[in-house]
Amino acid sequence: MGDKRKMRIVYPSSEKVYVFGEVNKIKVGMRRIKQTDTITIDSKGGKIRKKNNPVIVYDTSGPFSDSQVIVENGKGIPRFREEWYLRRKDIIKLDALSSVYCVKPGKNLTQMYYAKRRVITPEMEYVAIRENQQIEDLGLKSYITPDFVRKEIAAGRAIIPSNINHPEAEPMIIGQKFLVKVNTTINNSLPPHMMEEEIEKIAWCCKWGSDTLMDLSTGENMHESRERLIRNCPIPFGTVPLYQALDKVGGSIEDLNWAIYRDTLIEQAEQGVDIFTIHAAILQEHIDQAVLRLNGIVSHGGSILSKWMQMHKEENFLFTHFVEICEIAKTYDVIISIGDGLRPGAVYDANDTAQMAELRVMGKLINIAWKQFVQVMTESSGHLPMNKILDNVKERQYACHNAPLYSYGPMITDAACGYEYIASAIGAAQIAWQGTSLISCVIPERHCIIANKIAAHAADLAKGHPGAQVRDNALSKARFELRRKDAQNLSFDPERAAK
Amino acid sequence: MGDKRKMRIVYPSSEKVYVFGEVNKIKVGMRRIKQTDTITIDSKGGKIRKKNNPVIVYDTSGPFSDSQVIVENGKGIPRFREEWYLRRKDIIKLDALSSVYCVKPGKNLTQMYYAKRRVITPEMEYVAIRENQQIEDLGLKSYITPDFVRKEIAAGRAIIPSNINHPEAEPMIIGQKFLVKVNTTINNSLPPHMMEEEIEKIAWCCKWGSDTLMDLSTGENMHESRERLIRNCPIPFGTVPLYQALDKVGGSIEDLNWAIYRDTLIEQAEQGVDIFTIHAAILQEHIDQAVLRLNGIVSHGGSILSKWMQMHKEENFLFTHFVEICEIAKTYDVIISIGDGLRPGAVYDANDTAQMAELRVMGKLINIAWKQFVQVMTESSGHLPMNKILDNVKERQYACHNAPLYSYGPMITDAACGYEYIASAIGAAQIAWQGTSLISCVIPERHCIIANKIAAHAADLAKGHPGAQVRDNALSKARFELRRKDAQNLSFDPERAAK
Repeated sequence: MGDKRKMRIVYPSSEKVYVFGEVNKIKVGMRRIKQTDTITIDSKGGKIRKKNNPVIVYDTSGPFSDSQVIVENGKGIPRFREEWYLRRKDIIKLDALSSVYCVKPGKNLTQMYYAKRRVITPEMEYVAIRENQQIEDLGLKSYITPDFVRKEIAAGRAIIPSNINHPEAEPMIIGQKFLVKVNTTINNSLPPHMMEEEIEKIAWCCKWGSDTLMDLSTGENMHESRERLIRNCPIPFGTVPLYQALDKVGGSIEDLNWAIYRDTLIEQAEQGVDIFTIHAAILQEHIDQAVLRLNGIVSHGGSILSKWMQMHKEENFLFTHFVEICEIAKTYDVIISIGDGLRPGAVYDANDTAQMAELRVMGKLINIAWKQFVQVMTESSGHLPMNKILDNVKERQYACHNAPLYSYGPMITDAACGYEYIASAIGAAQIAWQGTSLISCVIPERHCIIANKIAAHAADLAKGHPGAQVRDNALSKARFELRRKDAQNLSFDPERAAK
Repeated sequence: MGDKRKMRIVYPSSEKVYVFGEVNKIKVGMRRIKQTDTITIDSKGGKIRKKNNPVIVYDTSGPFSDSQVIVENGKGIPRFREEWYLRRKDIIKLDALSSVYCVKPGKNLTQMYYAKRRVITPEMEYVAIRENQQIEDLGLKSYITPDFVRKEIAAGRAIIPSNINHPEAEPMIIGQKFLVKVNTTINNSLPPHMMEEEIEKIAWCCKWGSDTLMDLSTGENMHESRERLIRNCPIPFGTVPLYQALDKVGGSIEDLNWAIYRDTLIEQAEQGVDIFTIHAAILQEHIDQAVLRLNGIVSHGGSILSKWMQMHKEENFLFTHFVEICEIAKTYDVIISIGDGLRPGAVYDANDTAQMAELRVMGKLINIAWKQFVQVMTESSGHLPMNKILDNVKERQYACHNAPLYSYGPMITDAACGYEYIASAIGAAQIAWQGTSLISCVIPERHCIIANKIAAHAADLAKGHPGAQVRDNALSKARFELRRKDAQNLSFDPERAAK
């Protein structure tokens, strides 16, 4: 089939609709799910038909579900956000022939910078429109306004991943006051001839509702693979740059150094990586604390850096160079997601001294990043019993000045082997309700993504997001009236619901 | 293969062990999971072996996992509890030739009666031993004593389903202070020649950890089918007697009456049904309240009775005859599980006036039952967003005088079509942590049972049950030390974990 394979997402009884911006020249894609009529019988045996409004839902499927756009595998998807740059005076092309952008000297171009300057960027208006699906049914208008988005970003409570070198990505917002988002992690190192399948996997993750994609791949051809993935990815794309830096020194932890890491950051930022996971908060003094644990240090990044610190008897170089890391991040508006090198690997180790000590360092790093208007979030979780979830969120919010929280899981028991996606969804639903803004599935499989979508939606309902309630009510009504097709079409996986 | 098909449950690296009673002559089956040694390398490159204790876990597999007992499909499993009756002076055989028992005139034989009389029955000691698995690892002894069990039963906060006509069943306890239990619902009406498969399904539910079985089957041969199921069932067995009563009047709701219902109760109690779900708390005055709902009355029992009340313009006959129902229940020590005829069928309807009104009636019925020392629990849930779970449990505990709570789900969103088991497990984990004692899977499928086992175990961890933590810690340690086989064997579904 070659490169010409078309990538198309089709949802049953749905159409792609666009809502246009008022402040900026933007159009925001949404999915409109049609419903059949409710039919009742009157006293004379006649049929009474009553219309059911279509339901408009948040749509992560990007250009793949737009029948007007033909996406051929490997050719890249439209760089629609580039058009917005024409009106910006803060961006330059690094080389007239390339399409790599960076900030103009002396300027700052991050969303946080503009938010604090009281400027509503196209990205802010875009996400405001996206978050407001279907609320007219409830008699509300613009529950989330562009200015509300701006204020949350200015306060550091929300972020919009939008590296200027990833103009293919639709802006989306991560923050406690918005819809809970779902990340999907991809983790493989495919030879170039298998990239097509990998690219199709992106379309497929978008189909089931992934809001962001974290690429944890290692091995050869990392640069080329990533290039093709990003050029076809309509959702923000994240990495752990440490993995590529380690690869550049042949996997020898001892040989890792700041120069190689810095070059890796720049290389990835120029490619368009929207989110860097950086384990800058694990320090020498924490290593001894982790020895007391049942399961020690289980984070891959954390364990690489703790070994590096022990070999060099030096402080974590990501911590000592954090100001410079922020300078690179702000040049392209990359999100810094502060990794949790000390996340607990067992329920027994949850919320322990080591984890809390790292949290306090995260708080300091966030202040450093915010000084340069770099957008930040923090990662955490791992393993956490249900009774410690609320405490964990409160501690993290307090220590990290309410910067958005990103959770892997948490796993609420270690005994769920083979069913980790269920233990993780149980934890994710609760932690998202309590305040986490982004939850993650660790494997890019359909049932895992859908489990997290259910968890996210349940949290949106519990938090009282009106749009979530509209969809739920429509589905309840369809089921009660035995409109089975409508109920299937309104659910997160219509194909499986139909079975 | 015919009736001779042997039913045997085998778990990897496990053996059946028995713990003997101190007060009563009883032996309690448990599962002992062996672990391999931890191997580390010392400074000279030599191997150091360190033993890992076997982990003893709660076992629902009954005689099926005892290699000393040969169970042939259809022949019935050992009636081991009958031996205990020899020492009782409160039981008579209804007919010297049959094996149907009932209470001796003038006596009361319920567990609650004995608990209030300060007598520790074999059933109480049995469950006390069962609940204490593996705590010696934590330096604790007898976390749960027989007298603690007795007190909880006397107070009505816990129940032991143990119809004297189901002597095949191993006693187990349902109450907030004990391990969270998992019910499995079976719902089919198979012709007699397919009963073998149905009986195998029981062994299979026990294998994956079902603590009770609710039979919601309807249709022909109900009596015969149930007889064969109960004779092969080592866990408590429940029904909704209304379904059989309705069948006896040819499915015509109007023709339902107390006489037929009463006969059905006696018939089922004599067969050995341990739990009757009785929708006695839905009243005429509630019907109007339910009209305001998005999804009306969705409980099958509730909808049958509301139609009956509307046709007859009379009060629910299960309510008006509740004293007599209790008299039948106490004759055999059947649990009355007060059904929630008004459980919400949509997240939108959760915790509404109708549901709360029914709750208050439940509270009155519980007092009536307790006057006769009948053991009671209450059912509820259905659909409930996460933010209403805690309120729901508190209201139910208050209105129902802390009688044990039994939850179907709850579903924390209506949008999970095709993945109901996940939405239900997310809700079940939370409601069990907050105080529900029995959670249920609505379909007897392996992934659904395991999802509920994970939810129950997560709740046990969150509630701080020491035995649950021992198993979790052993599993964490095995995973950290890369003893993969041990980790698999310690998890809830070793076969799937191995994949």
